Amino acid sequence: MLRQNLNALLNPKSIAVIGVSNDPSRIGGRILRYLKNHGYKGDIFPVNPKYKEIEGIRCCPDVASIPLEIDVALVAVPEKLVLSVLEESGKAKVKAAVIYSSGFSEMGAEGKGKQLKLRQLAEEYRISVCGPNCVGIIGFHNQTAMSFSQFLDVSKLIPGDIAFISQSGALGGALLNRIQDRSIGISHFVSTGNEAILETSDYIEYFLDDPKTSVIMILMEGIRDGGKFLRVADLALKRGKPIVVMKVGKTETGGKAAGSHTGSMTGSDAVYDAIFKQKGVIRVEELEDLYLTASTLSKCRLTNGPRVGIITTTGGGGVILSDELVSMGMDVPDLSEPTIEKLKDTKASFGIVKNPLDLTAQVVNDPLLFPKSIQTFIQDGHLDNIIVALAMVAGERSKERASYIIDVAQTTDKPILTWWASGSLSMPGMKMLENSQVPFFSSPTRCVKALHALVRYANILKKKDDWMMCTAPAVVNESRLSIKGVERLYQGSSHVLTEHEGKEILASYGIPVTKEGLGSDFDEIKRMASEIGYPVALKVVSPEILHKTEIGGLRLHLNDDNELRKAYDEVIRNVKHHKPNANIKGMLVQEMVSPGREVIIGIIQDPQFGPMVMFGLGGIFVEVLKDFSLRHPPLKENDAWEMIKEIKGYQLLDGARGEKRLDQEAIVRTLMAVSSMALDLKDVFSEIDINPLVVYPEGGDLKAIDCLFVKKHEVRRGIADD
Amino acid sequence: MLRQNLNALLNPKSIAVIGVSNDPSRIGGRILRYLKNHGYKGDIFPVNPKYKEIEGIRCCPDVASIPLEIDVALVAVPEKLVLSVLEESGKAKVKAAVIYSSGFSEMGAEGKGKQLKLRQLAEEYRISVCGPNCVGIIGFHNQTAMSFSQFLDVSKLIPGDIAFISQSGALGGALLNRIQDRSIGISHFVSTGNEAILETSDYIEYFLDDPKTSVIMILMEGIRDGGKFLRVADLALKRGKPIVVMKVGKTETGGKAAGSHTGSMTGSDAVYDAIFKQKGVIRVEELEDLYLTASTLSKCRLTNGPRVGIITTTGGGGVILSDELVSMGMDVPDLSEPTIEKLKDTKASFGIVKNPLDLTAQVVNDPLLFPKSIQTFIQDGHLDNIIVALAMVAGERSKERASYIIDVAQTTDKPILTWWASGSLSMPGMKMLENSQVPFFSSPTRCVKALHALVRYANILKKKDDWMMCTAPAVVNESRLSIKGVERLYQGSSHVLTEHEGKEILASYGIPVTKEGLGSDFDEIKRMASEIGYPVALKVVSPEILHKTEIGGLRLHLNDDNELRKAYDEVIRNVKHHKPNANIKGMLVQEMVSPGREVIIGIIQDPQFGPMVMFGLGGIFVEVLKDFSLRHPPLKENDAWEMIKEIKGYQLLDGARGEKRLDQEAIVRTLMAVSSMALDLKDVFSEIDINPLVVYPEGGDLKAIDCLFVKKHEVRRGIADD
Repeated sequence: MLRQNLNALLNPKSIAVIGVSNDPSRIGGRILRYLKNHGYKGDIFPVNPKYKEIEGIRCCPDVASIPLEIDVALVAVPEKLVLSVLEESGKAKVKAAVIYSSGFSEMGAEGKGKQLKLRQLAEEYRISVCGPNCVGIIGFHNQTAMSFSQFLDVSKLIPGDIAFISQSGALGGALLNRIQDRSIGISHFVSTGNEAILETSDYIEYFLDDPKTSVIMILMEGIRDGGKFLRVADLALKRGKPIVVMKVGKTETGGKAAGSHTGSMTGSDAVYDAIFKQKGVIRVEELEDLYLTASTLSKCRLTNGPRVGIITTTGGGGVILSDELVSMGMDVPDLSEPTIEKLKDTKASFGIVKNPLDLTAQVVNDPLLFPKSIQTFIQDGHLDNIIVALAMVAGERSKERASYIIDVAQTTDKPILTWWASGSLSMPGMKMLENSQVPFFSSPTRCVKALHALVRYANILKKKDDWMMCTAPAVVNESRLSIKGVERLYQGSSHVLTEHEGKEILASYGIPVTKEGLGSDFDEIKRMASEIGYPVALKVVSPEILHKTEIGGLRLHLNDDNELRKAYDEVIRNVKHHKPNANIKGMLVQEMVSPGREVIIGIIQDPQFGPMVMFGLGGIFVEVLKDFSLRHPPLKENDAWEMIKEIKGYQLLDGARGEKRLDQEAIVRTLMAVSSMALDLKDVFSEIDINPLVVYPEGGDLKAIDCLFVKKHEVRRGIADD
Repeated sequence: MLRQNLNALLNPKSIAVIGVSNDPSRIGGRILRYLKNHGYKGDIFPVNPKYKEIEGIRCCPDVASIPLEIDVALVAVPEKLVLSVLEESGKAKVKAAVIYSSGFSEMGAEGKGKQLKLRQLAEEYRISVCGPNCVGIIGFHNQTAMSFSQFLDVSKLIPGDIAFISQSGALGGALLNRIQDRSIGISHFVSTGNEAILETSDYIEYFLDDPKTSVIMILMEGIRDGGKFLRVADLALKRGKPIVVMKVGKTETGGKAAGSHTGSMTGSDAVYDAIFKQKGVIRVEELEDLYLTASTLSKCRLTNGPRVGIITTTGGGGVILSDELVSMGMDVPDLSEPTIEKLKDTKASFGIVKNPLDLTAQVVNDPLLFPKSIQTFIQDGHLDNIIVALAMVAGERSKERASYIIDVAQTTDKPILTWWASGSLSMPGMKMLENSQVPFFSSPTRCVKALHALVRYANILKKKDDWMMCTAPAVVNESRLSIKGVERLYQGSSHVLTEHEGKEILASYGIPVTKEGLGSDFDEIKRMASEIGYPVALKVVSPEILHKTEIGGLRLHLNDDNELRKAYDEVIRNVKHHKPNANIKGMLVQEMVSPGREVIIGIIQDPQFGPMVMFGLGGIFVEVLKDFSLRHPPLKENDAWEMIKEIKGYQLLDGARGEKRLDQEAIVRTLMAVSSMALDLKDVFSEIDINPLVVYPEGGDLKAIDCLFVKKHEVRRGIADD
């Protein structure tokens, strides 16, 4: 149903304009005018009891009196009339509606109530609703301008293959103007508003099936249903249609104080960032990069790799491009011998033949140097992409320069991007490039960022099977604790599991933990210590004592029975003194593990996306340097490797400073196990923190030293000592 | 002399065009045409034996036959004629010359030789030379277009108060076109070329005295004379004329493999970055930010602080601005109660009154909301700056909107910046803003970056005395080693000092070092150990053994004479086994220091700027995370504090994770001591590395555990064991 109605919404055969007005300053006035001006070819029915006729079209007093079936009702009435209009439209079998009116969930509690009613009505009558509180929808191919955005004052809509979904209406409309100034064509523009019914992911799904759309760009404030977004993002990869997102609200943090290290480290923006990376969604950081990147993905075929050849008439410009390329991890390789020979043959007396290739002012005397050099770069198999940098070329000559590039670009699949550093004097050439299939930029940085996105997306598509969600159920591990087992551990008044309880769960997922035992008297503890083998550590176990060190509830490096006895007595004394009323579950005796590199693996719960697996280096790195990675479970091995490699301190795991490479395979195994745990236990624990997890050199595996499981329900605060 | 001739160069009363041509495609042809077209008011003398007259002006066969004194010779002859023309000009008492011709130092060894001859001639005849290999100089106030850049095809030069110095000629010319498209006025444009005589710092110095220039912007590839740049940068702070720099060649690393941790970490870009920070030079990262930031500094008066009020008609735009502001460390504070009351009084029914203030579509019905809200923000003492974000406003209405902002901005010194998200439909309003004193941006990110530069510069000016170079000699420390003392340590064949020798120097500068002694037999060592107090460490000392641990030449945690004896015998045995021919200077017995936070302080030598002091956290942070700071000595305390605070891991020194704040004052003292050391010993050692330096909690001071002094001369390689 949704699909069918979405088609009615986006390609309507008949439109009712409800609340139409003959005052062009009013929304209802503008909509009718724009619809007509931009040449909508279907039937238009203005609805307003005040008029008999408007702009030469007969006006109906209400929806019921429209003689034909209506695909879309454009609702431009004051908020207080919206619900009755919607009901009336429902009764008249209208398939879809665009509700422009504001005054709903964006206006606090009262507005939220109204939006809920709107939602109920829409569901009852099966109306697909865009909005409320939006600027509407514009179809560029079908000339269907169902919006009041003043952008529609333009004389002509430029159709293209980029769908533009904007959660911000005013900003989206403004950007459209700039986008079309640059001759970037659009298939549909959708302002999603409050997303009472249809949400961003629904539109994405529609455009994935739309033959007129090949790239989807989104100005995003947030996703309502994380699961739906994950599903359509996977579908987009399958179809090979890139999604480019500018996500605003970056600095808004997840907010709530969390009980674990992992929890305190994650704000919702980090989660979005991880989801985008994991699903091959291309995130841009600046508004202008949104349409420039989308346009580049629309114009260019895929690239083979990150190697870039630069042709320039300004040495300084070549250096700037190289700076940007290298700092984004791309290559500006030396030219191959055959290429150097060929370039020398073109009797070029320009300086030195290298990459970037500076044609210098020589190109003025010999303009053919230009296409010849590009051609030579195209033929060089060691270059995957070409950037051509142009400087001060005025008037007719700028057109000549542009046409050389456009002609030669048609002979190849290799991406050729252009940056032109000058201004109005070169406008004739710039306009030619804008109107061609050659991506054109006025900023070198934006040019390189767009190319970077192209390289990344090509890379992702090559191995898209690794990237897509694993649909198979997580591997079942026989030794895993049964639900009953977890329930047993879950008893008790504390809002967290004890370290020992937590490790029982970890061990059941095959994660190596310290050898240890929980004893209730010294004899038992002594026996355990000899089984474990000295040296050992001794820790008091009590849900009321979270910070054992501070009250002397922890002793390390105990080498024999005597030292153990002494430590036991001390800990008992300290606990009695500092926490006389604590509920003591016993004493934990634990092997002293040999030192290694400490890492953290954890699970948090995100309100939109559910459980997220987190990885980082030991405390300082995660807490102070905010150096951690996140992914959504179930993980594929590919995800786990990415999580390890994307942290800034990765070299510390890979043999920095002459150390041995650590057992990264063991970290991957553990991340996969935690991924299963995240899904199995997502309704039971709100946060899980394995910290520290000590990793040893290659082949040496790892070991969980401590862990924290925070229960999801029955969170009891005030029990712990902080 | 230089000053006088620079004035002749930049404000010439008479110009000779040598190598003039009647072919407008040739440099000599274009120059004459541009000079005339843009209305140069002084005397022009074309020089070329081929012509009698050109463009209606009498042509001289050579410089000698020009009847008047010439301020500037514009030299547009082939490279092989340049030297003779320069000599001829010298004999004719020409004061300055612009040499456009290429074929000098940019063309390898032969070209460098020619440039040296050019330099000798210029010095002999006292001619101030701009170039060679440049596109020339353009005076915008005096209409003196001495360039062949096609930018001069524009119909009109727009004068202003920004001087533009470009080391890249072609790129500079191209940018000029774009800059003037945006109505940004320029005082002078100088393409410096190969800087055979006049270099960037000379032009800066001139513009600091030029009443028509208030901001200097530089497209920089590198500085030849570091000391001169430091001096003029100080002068710029004194005059309150901001210098804005785009430095290209970022990813080019310092290159040479260095012997110490400090040395290996520093590339020349990090040095430039440090120099810019230290001297209050504003560095921008993208080309477009260069002129947008310069223009903002030219248009705005200084700001009082980092607090920003945002007024917007697009909610999404407000969020984007907030994101950028917060991520750059600025504030978007809550509105004060009086401001909220006033805004409510303006009977605004727009959503919620907060910062960012979203005027919503309401502003269409009540356009005065716009100036009223801005006025209210101006009156709010808790807001230092205002950003106004505009969305889709078309045609005449865009002019109305712009004029409101321009009018209200004239009533205040508070910076008001504007960002307009739409395109051509709003052009009338945009053009009004561009032509006004209100900074205007089409990118929200560039708007915030420019405001950030304004805030930072205002901050620097407030305490410019702290920022300027300390001209007083470094404080003399009586206990410092005499030159003779250093010379004594400097003897010997090794290219480094031993740890023990290095510490003698550190101690003489008042830097706490480990208690230790160098003994030659066990009895002596035992005596020293008891003086120092157990536990101690024992290390073999030999210039041939740099990596003591690997060959077992180091023993730690020795608790008594017995353990010391055992360790002594082991070390002797190990050294004999692994390094039988090593020259052993003795054994170092050293106190075991209590654990603390490890930091590194070092000195490197930069080819342009000389010694640089470096600070960072222990090895991993500097080597793997590249988290370190640099400054040029002599340091002021202000610099030392900045060095500490600008590292990413600063929180680790300031009580992160419930730890105590460390003795940062001790770090500052040590940085100041190292600053003196850097100047005293700059001709003696190429690198100094104090690593690790263990810092204790507040009041606990610090202690140097190890150090490395690499000698500057007589570097002997191949002695060390790696």
